[in-house]
Amino acid sequence: MIQNSKFKIQNSIKRISGSKIEIRSRNKLTKHNLPLIYTPGVAKLSQKIARKKKRVYDLTWKGSNVAIVTDGSAVLGLGNLGPEAALPVMEGKAALFKELANIDAVPIVLSTQNTTKIIETVKNIASGFGGINLEDISAPRCFEIEEKLVRELDIPVFHDDQHGTAIAVLAGLINALKVVKKDISRVRIVVSGAGAAGTAITKLLKKYGARNIIVFDSKGSLCCRCARDVQGAKKEIACATNNDRYIKDLGTALQGADVFVGVSASNLLKKSDISKMNKRAIVFAMCNPEPEISYKEAKLGGATVVATGRSDFPNQINNALVFPGIFRGALDTRTKIISDKIKIKAALAIAGLVKNPKNDRIVPEVLDKRVAKAVAGAFR
Amino acid sequence: MIQNSKFKIQNSIKRISGSKIEIRSRNKLTKHNLPLIYTPGVAKLSQKIARKKKRVYDLTWKGSNVAIVTDGSAVLGLGNLGPEAALPVMEGKAALFKELANIDAVPIVLSTQNTTKIIETVKNIASGFGGINLEDISAPRCFEIEEKLVRELDIPVFHDDQHGTAIAVLAGLINALKVVKKDISRVRIVVSGAGAAGTAITKLLKKYGARNIIVFDSKGSLCCRCARDVQGAKKEIACATNNDRYIKDLGTALQGADVFVGVSASNLLKKSDISKMNKRAIVFAMCNPEPEISYKEAKLGGATVVATGRSDFPNQINNALVFPGIFRGALDTRTKIISDKIKIKAALAIAGLVKNPKNDRIVPEVLDKRVAKAVAGAFR
Repeated sequence: MIQNSKFKIQNSIKRISGSKIEIRSRNKLTKHNLPLIYTPGVAKLSQKIARKKKRVYDLTWKGSNVAIVTDGSAVLGLGNLGPEAALPVMEGKAALFKELANIDAVPIVLSTQNTTKIIETVKNIASGFGGINLEDISAPRCFEIEEKLVRELDIPVFHDDQHGTAIAVLAGLINALKVVKKDISRVRIVVSGAGAAGTAITKLLKKYGARNIIVFDSKGSLCCRCARDVQGAKKEIACATNNDRYIKDLGTALQGADVFVGVSASNLLKKSDISKMNKRAIVFAMCNPEPEISYKEAKLGGATVVATGRSDFPNQINNALVFPGIFRGALDTRTKIISDKIKIKAALAIAGLVKNPKNDRIVPEVLDKRVAKAVAGAFR
Repeated sequence: MIQNSKFKIQNSIKRISGSKIEIRSRNKLTKHNLPLIYTPGVAKLSQKIARKKKRVYDLTWKGSNVAIVTDGSAVLGLGNLGPEAALPVMEGKAALFKELANIDAVPIVLSTQNTTKIIETVKNIASGFGGINLEDISAPRCFEIEEKLVRELDIPVFHDDQHGTAIAVLAGLINALKVVKKDISRVRIVVSGAGAAGTAITKLLKKYGARNIIVFDSKGSLCCRCARDVQGAKKEIACATNNDRYIKDLGTALQGADVFVGVSASNLLKKSDISKMNKRAIVFAMCNPEPEISYKEAKLGGATVVATGRSDFPNQINNALVFPGIFRGALDTRTKIISDKIKIKAALAIAGLVKNPKNDRIVPEVLDKRVAKAVAGAFR
């Protein structure tokens, strides 16, 4: 039996390890419709769009598509693997886009990691897309790239590692706080990771009412006015958290903390670190593919609610809860700016789908078809 | 009855006038295969590719996909309509790629018409694609763009308006010459149009053995050493044809000509122009969507073999006979350079599918499934 089931898994790995997506014609080609699908029929559509550019949304796939753009500089938690190695992740994401929100998502992997060139390239290809999902681009370049593209393009631009993660974390935290009966304005939160995700999470939690957050990078806590001086985006987030103490060790900071949010590196924490946290602790260990601490260890350490980014443990806090609905909503309402208000509404919508949150059920399943619809509702 | 059939056509125009293509997941998403299609499963594939870049061909859709890249500067025969208006044509083309050669073709429409920026952009996005089909880019920029991309990329680059058209014309001409019993080395050929298609057609016909070609642009015949001086790509082609006379009027040049090849502008010729041609004349009037002279007028003018680019008349000489098979062959054999030898083999393969060429049957139907396979055979 076990051998048989192993064999089945081996087979399905093989089957899925090739291309995950394909482009299909929406119509079967026949001699009758060929003149409509190809020349001369398409000429009429081209002329209509040439007369009124906005019609491109109704007459082509621009109304339902998105480019997933990466430079491969921060592939999952694996690091700078380059554009080719990033492609399977983008394909998996495209498969989810279609299945969960009927969006046609095109992986675009860039062979440059130069900020200016990335911005230029995305601007040059944007006319054919209804939105841009930036993906797996390392910090701090990702901030400038997103900021400039949001300003200069007339379609929505959304760096999923930042905002998708932040919305998913907020959704999970809203329900986790219900489970442990604590208030967002009173909990002490430790965020591990000061990259794209950590920065956006910190900002969004603050917007939602969190008042006590410490952010760590690999060298210790960020602080605004203290011996350790940080620059740029890190300085900004350090000062936003009002943390003035430098703490070298993550374990030390966890002493008495209510919430741990990990978007950093695998196997950073031990059971004993969790044990130091406040009672009824919340642990979101979301590094992919291997979390900061495994679900089991965190539980053994005494945490009440534990979540990871993985689908093989309870409470999968994953951007897949967010990006399909965000783009569905943005495309349907032709919204360009995805504001903090929309992000918070989206998080509340996701949290609201779990009627009675419990330790092991704070977010809906990634494949729950209601999620994308609920998130898209945040745009109305 | 007529009303009913009109209604049906109206309906199918409506149905086909939206997006023509979509991206699909190759696997139905389930809780079971989600960890394989998305994180953590994709991490394994990413790491495999990071270790050995060539594996990207087997582990992603790069092995079966193509980017169709345009700047919208020469959309069909309609002119410089811009990237948005070019999108329906690229979608139609993508539908044909899939149906005829099982290739996943992604429309990329560029919002720049600057040669250097186009080259840069295509280079930046090329890692995710198995080939680049350049499309509807105006001459003379298209020559430099293709030349540089062929040199600098490690995947095949093929400007279809040049070489797809040239191969299709050669295929048609091989069989038309059989019908009228004339020899390529002895016929007098008049090419109308000195853009992308006209230039490539002239070069390929010469390679195949044509010795007497005059090329016209809108101002008259190109000539190598005569009062009318032309520059750049036009000079090159003018000298390649060894034509030293300047002839202002296309009609005058048609006097006694055996073959007319039109890739220029709609309704250029009258029945009386065709009547001046040599007996058993061949007329390929391929401007899209409206030809240089209609099939019927050319026939009334006395031409023996008449072809257009349209599917609603006999003898559709269209790149659709060529590009699916060219990229199928290039992808399957990982061929980077699509040489003149391959182009001529491809033309012979297309011509060879018509066992007994007749006036109204010199090329196979565009939807004939054997064509792409035969063309791909030119790469072996």
